[in-house]
Parts: sequence; structure tokens; C-alpha cells
Amino acid sequence: MTDVFVHEVGTRDGLQSVPTFVPTELKQRWCSEEFRAGVREIEVCSFVPAKLIPQFADAAEVVRHALTIEGLTVAVLVPNMKGAELALQHGVHKINYVISASESHNRANVRRSTEESALDFERIVDLCCAQPFAERPKIVGGISTALGCTIEGKVSEESVRRLALRLVKAGADELILADTVGYADPAAVRRLFSVVKSDIGAVPITAHFHDTRGLGLANVLAALDVGVRAFDASLGGLGGCPYAPGASGNISTEDLVFMLDSMGLETGVDIHALLEMRAEITALLGDHPYHGAIARAGLPKGYQGYQGRTAG
Amino acid sequence: MTDVFVHEVGTRDGLQSVPTFVPTELKQRWCSEEFRAGVREIEVCSFVPAKLIPQFADAAEVVRHALTIEGLTVAVLVPNMKGAELALQHGVHKINYVISASESHNRANVRRSTEESALDFERIVDLCCAQPFAERPKIVGGISTALGCTIEGKVSEESVRRLALRLVKAGADELILADTVGYADPAAVRRLFSVVKSDIGAVPITAHFHDTRGLGLANVLAALDVGVRAFDASLGGLGGCPYAPGASGNISTEDLVFMLDSMGLETGVDIHALLEMRAEITALLGDHPYHGAIARAGLPKGYQGYQGRTAG
Repeated sequence: MTDVFVHEVGTRDGLQSVPTFVPTELKQRWCSEEFRAGVREIEVCSFVPAKLIPQFADAAEVVRHALTIEGLTVAVLVPNMKGAELALQHGVHKINYVISASESHNRANVRRSTEESALDFERIVDLCCAQPFAERPKIVGGISTALGCTIEGKVSEESVRRLALRLVKAGADELILADTVGYADPAAVRRLFSVVKSDIGAVPITAHFHDTRGLGLANVLAALDVGVRAFDASLGGLGGCPYAPGASGNISTEDLVFMLDSMGLETGVDIHALLEMRAEITALLGDHPYHGAIARAGLPKGYQGYQGRTAG
Repeated sequence: MTDVFVHEVGTRDGLQSVPTFVPTELKQRWCSEEFRAGVREIEVCSFVPAKLIPQFADAAEVVRHALTIEGLTVAVLVPNMKGAELALQHGVHKINYVISASESHNRANVRRSTEESALDFERIVDLCCAQPFAERPKIVGGISTALGCTIEGKVSEESVRRLALRLVKAGADELILADTVGYADPAAVRRLFSVVKSDIGAVPITAHFHDTRGLGLANVLAALDVGVRAFDASLGGLGGCPYAPGASGNISTEDLVFMLDSMGLETGVDIHALLEMRAEITALLGDHPYHGAIARAGLPKGYQGYQGRTAG
């Protein structure tokens, strides 16, 4: 029984900020090894034109490999209809589509209004629903800048609630609420996730936090407290923040797993195996700004974790 | 009205790990400037023999200066009776005395059993109570390794509860529960602080967390949730961990203030002024391993904080 789901997004959100092309084989190995450590969902890449983000030029090959890993939920990010069509062709399990709650951020990111993006999401849902039921991927509506925006500053709770409701009514199987730029605090997290959860009923929500201002794991705790049970994270905290040089990006997967695991929450991930594959993959990836404390400090003396507890 | 008290301990816990002697004038300036930013309690030094910790050879001069800062609560750490006598002579406001919950850690730290240390605490209380009431400092019983120990690993909740009760019965005005080595997790924090609080009634508890494994601020949130209203922290996260090279030590004061402030909790500290004096003092202190995210990433766009809110 898993208490909390940990979704790896470093292969997408992390690699997106890495300027040099990472070999396809290494991306594939990352997926395989993280699955072996117990992670059961990975956002493996983005189906975006290679001229926009050359890092994902090999998206098709990475997805094809990931789909051979029995038991792994293969998610991809798609920025538009074209991406969704590619995702469908490849038979991914989840299509993550992101709209910014902040109008200016959405325009800067995808050169469309929030309204146009929402209409696009509805068309993607229609496209997916036209597939035979057994082949239909889950469609995830992601709301970025849900807790603040580097362009607009504050983002109103009202605009996030409206967008969340709209995505659910359009047919989203799940939602992601993302603190894209690390503006959230635990009080804001509790407020926003509580109201959105009560608005949308049983539709699962994943929280996507960045640790830019050091509050990433405190925000996870706040979200846990109001019933969130799925979190995005990036191995080695790979990613960074384009607006704050040297600052961290996504919360690190291994710190997230360590916190949940030490609280006695079952993630299915073996922290020892995760730390081993983290060391291996970051060594292969080379010199990037990694973040995360547990890899540096080591586990507490006598720490057992998942493996130890389940073996006992 | 202050919602949460922030106690600076970098001048003691932070500087203790700095091998080169920091000029007396700089230590004094640190106290003055941090008071100007709104911090109202500082553990300014330790009254410990200079041959053990040369960094505190100028303790008397730093204390004398700190006592001239009108409105500042001047706390000092004392390891034994001799230190307490010095603290009394100087007229400090608070005497912080620390005992490890872990027997092995206490022996390693002060070469005495926990029992001998507890008896010493009782003698210190007697000494203080013999003073005229108006001159009597507050006596704080600190319990270190309260959430784990690098020598013994797990530390039983029972031993911490027993020690807390004993210190309170001996006459402690306040307690500090310290996660000295960064082993705590939010679930353990909620359990321990809840039971100790219900054991000891109205005696205030300060939480002293280290961020060694990245959970420092999540642990603060957990403690806040069970009613803790005072936290120790170190400017710039100065301190580190002797057992984990490169790992962080105390939670950083500015990250703590940022989290509390952004949650709408009044700390009395002006985050803008704090970040300015952090930049100044760390520049003067020179090249040490600093930690903390907010100084690196900067405040969110349009962030007002204490100053902005109270001015509005």
C-alpha cells in the first residue's frame, strides 16, 4: 500500500534547464534505474519542437524505452495539440498539459491567452476521448504559477479555482497545482489546496513545488496536511530557476522521499537504492548545479527506511 | 504583538564552528545590527574556558556590549557551574544550560553522565535563586539530541520527557528541545513537542532545529502546528555539521523569518533589513559555508513583508 506517490519530473523539468544535450541512452537509464528504486511515475520528456528545446529532440526514443518498463506510468508534457497527437501515437499513459494561472506568464510561456490554452485543453480531451477506451491516456490539467508569478507577483486564489474547475469540467482525470517559481508558503498552500480540493471533489491533485526560496518541503508538509497524496520532484534537485542564478528549482526527489519515509509514510521507494542511483546518474550527467541535503549529509545513524521496515 | 519569537544563535552555535577568531567588534556589530532588524533575543556567546573554544575568549566583552542594547534579551550558553557564575556576574538575562538526552552524547560533549549534568543544573538554579529577585536571570534547560544522536541513533521519547520534567521541576523557566544533529522529521517533531508540552504545562519551549538533512523548515512548521512559538536560528545558516562535511547546520535565520513572515505570522523582524545586515555581516565574516535560500533567490516580486504590512 502506497501512502504517497512520488513522481519524477527531473527528466523533463530538470533536463529542460540543462543546455548541453544529454545522451538518449543516459535518459533511458535514468528512467530504468529510478523505476528499480521504486518510483512508479516519471514525466519522461516534453513533446515540444526540437528547435524550441533541443534537449527533447530524442523524446520519441526516450518514451519508447520508458514504455518497455513494466509497471511504470509514462507521462509526457505537451504544450499544444501537436504534442498531444504525438503523445497519443506513442501510447503514453499520461498527458500533462500546463496552463498558467497568470495571464502574462501564459503569454510569455506559450504565446497564447489563458482562455486560448483552456480551449486547446478541451480539444485535447476530445481527441483523447475519440480513442478506443483501452488506449486512452489519462489527461492531466496542470496549473502553473498557481501560487505566484515572477511577472505578476501575486496570483489570485479565485483565478486558480476557476481554472481548476474549468479543467475538471473539460474532462481532466487529474490536476497538478504548480508553484512554478517558488513563491508558495505553507499557509498559502493549505488555503489553496483545501479550496480547490473541495471544489473539484474526487479528482486527484498532484502538488508540484519548487524549492527556490527554501520552503519546498515545508510546503509538501502543508499539502500533506490537507490531503494531497502525490508530489512531483526532480532527482538531485536538477533544474534551477532561470530568474535566480544559483537558486534551486524543483524539490529534490531524494529529500522528498527521505522526509516522507522518515515520517512513516509509504512511498514504495527504497531510499538507499534511490541515493545510489542518484549518485550514479548525477556522475554521468556531469557538472550541473544539484540541490538536496540528504545526499550530502547521509542518512541518520541506524536509519532503516522502507526496506528495513518492510523486512522487519 | 509578536506571534512567533526568533532567537539568533549564530553568534554562539554558528561561530563555535568557525576556526579563525572573529574580531570582538564584529561580533558586537552583528548583535547591534540584528537587533536593529527586529530580532529581540540573541545567544551571544558561551561562557566556556578559552582554551576549549578560543572563539569565545572575548565572551565578557561581547556580553557587555550586548547588554547596552536597550530591549535585547541577552542569553549565554553555559556548560557548567563556573560558566553560570560568570553569567551571573555579568548580569545576562538568560542562562542557557544544555544536557544531551543521549547518555553517550552527553559524555562526549561534557564528560559527565546525564544524571551529573542534571544535578549541576539544580545547583545552577539554586545559585540563581539566591540572587535578589530583580537581578535573577531566566534559567533555560536545553535538551540536545532530543530527536536523535549521531552516536546512539534513535533517542527514546521517554528519556526526553523524563529529562524535560526533571528540568522543569528543578526550576527551569523555559526549555529548549534541540535536534542537534538534524535527525528530526515532522512526524517525530509533532509527537515529541506535543507530549512534552502536555507534560510541562505553561513552561515555554523553544525549538532548535538543524537543517542538516533538509527538513529544518518543515520541522518548524510541524512545531508551529502543535503550538511552539519560539525558534532558534543562525544568520546565514552559519555553523555546519562536524559529522557531515559541507552539510548545513542550524536553520538559517533569514529563511525562518521569510517563512513565518510569508505565512502572515508576526515576528517583529523586518525581512528586508535582515537580508541587508546578513549581506553585510557575512561579507565581514568572510568565506565560510553559508546556507539559506532566500538570500540567494531574493524575495518574491512585490513581496511586502512586515514593514509593508504594518505601514499599510
